[in-house]
Amino acid sequence: MNALPRRVAETRLSINTVTLGNPPLHVALDAIAATGARNVGLWRETYDGKTARQAAKVVADHGLQVSTLCRCVLSTDRHTVADARRAIDDAHQLGAAALVVLAGGLPPGSRDLAGARTRVTEVFADIATVAGEAGVRLGLEPLHPMFTARRSVVNTLRHALDVVAPFPPETAGVVVDTFNVWWDAELIEQIRRAGAENRIAAVQVADWSWEHEHGPFLTRVLPGDGIIDITGILSATADAHYTGPIEVEIFNDLLWQKPPHQAAHNAWESLSASLR
Amino acid sequence: MNALPRRVAETRLSINTVTLGNPPLHVALDAIAATGARNVGLWRETYDGKTARQAAKVVADHGLQVSTLCRCVLSTDRHTVADARRAIDDAHQLGAAALVVLAGGLPPGSRDLAGARTRVTEVFADIATVAGEAGVRLGLEPLHPMFTARRSVVNTLRHALDVVAPFPPETAGVVVDTFNVWWDAELIEQIRRAGAENRIAAVQVADWSWEHEHGPFLTRVLPGDGIIDITGILSATADAHYTGPIEVEIFNDLLWQKPPHQAAHNAWESLSASLR
Repeated sequence: MNALPRRVAETRLSINTVTLGNPPLHVALDAIAATGARNVGLWRETYDGKTARQAAKVVADHGLQVSTLCRCVLSTDRHTVADARRAIDDAHQLGAAALVVLAGGLPPGSRDLAGARTRVTEVFADIATVAGEAGVRLGLEPLHPMFTARRSVVNTLRHALDVVAPFPPETAGVVVDTFNVWWDAELIEQIRRAGAENRIAAVQVADWSWEHEHGPFLTRVLPGDGIIDITGILSATADAHYTGPIEVEIFNDLLWQKPPHQAAHNAWESLSASLR
Repeated sequence: MNALPRRVAETRLSINTVTLGNPPLHVALDAIAATGARNVGLWRETYDGKTARQAAKVVADHGLQVSTLCRCVLSTDRHTVADARRAIDDAHQLGAAALVVLAGGLPPGSRDLAGARTRVTEVFADIATVAGEAGVRLGLEPLHPMFTARRSVVNTLRHALDVVAPFPPETAGVVVDTFNVWWDAELIEQIRRAGAENRIAAVQVADWSWEHEHGPFLTRVLPGDGIIDITGILSATADAHYTGPIEVEIFNDLLWQKPPHQAAHNAWESLSASLR
């Protein structure tokens, strides 16, 4: 395996604003820039009230680059493509390395999982065309199978890679989020495949707590506080020639109770430690 | 797809005692036999105080056959094989169609998922030898990936089939539990494979609630109350030439508050309806 030299890797580290509980944009960016981070993951909701162009200027003024813009959800809703068009335009304005795309869950009342998966493939094709024209890279993110019903009917890297396969790699990639894929017996093999096909659009890091079963469903913990072999997974992405941002993205009520600077500092330190 | 004619299927239906909250054995068997069921899934804990031979007599006196005995957990613990030997002996005494085997989770403090999976394969081999001598059929049950850390490092039917492959089908099969496998994009393909390899040792049914993300982690709901296409999955097992028991197994606090007869009746009605 390739080493992940800390000095090189640090310039690639990124902090997603949701890790801070998505405070107002300037608060999040102040806290994240103060850690020494050069990259930030943004949510469309956090620059509400600003245009993407205005948000892009604030980000640049903080010396930051946008690693991911979160997010665009595919669904059977007839507004999906219109919403995706806005998200793609924003990602273009912000210069995001990837626009995170989620498949969405089953339509309410439906048990037709195979049908939902077919529709995801169809809608993704529509959106990939728009993204290609805008020069934006989509990152389809498989979510953990516990989210199949309500959030994403795409649950493995293999499935995500199959969905994006018909489109050019510079338009259609996948997101490797450790929390969502760590359990998969095919993980290393599919990361290797993703590298060979030039499909890794983003890497996100969160850990799975040993206490997870007994806590809130969504809770993720800082890298190192759980049982995922994060260093091993990041090494696999290095072996797969991924050289882009490595972004820590944590949903955790306890972390969100901390002041944004403290949450950002903890995230930065935990992520750095996982690269040693 | 093959139909699942109700008249034929009803003789195959089974109710697992945990659906009733595992009351004392005679209470559970009275309630289950009263539904018209011919089969029962048992837990080793529920006949504590009786020998398996004594329990077998009580079961037979109720006109019931044992569809599954739950359960034997593989782990790195040095007592695993000794415990498995007792479970296998019990399954033999009870004439269980299958002894349910779980892989177990990560050892506490470990992040070595690949290593844990290797050990599962090794320990399963030891136990398969014992089971073969006793004429007992093991059913390795993949659990949902949300249980990887603490309960089972085997999370897909594909993986379970790979683990049991070196051993004779009459000794080593798999358990298809709808709650654990419904999300898998390879499910129908792997059920077909399981049928072709004569590996389906048991079928268990529970549904996944649309509310699951917001409720207790373990909660399952009665067939028809959730979003799993149970009829479709059971049809796939029929296509795969599975003709054994179809067992409803629900872990649900609300159901457990009902009198055992009521819980058994509800389970029976829900399972029957899912075959129509």
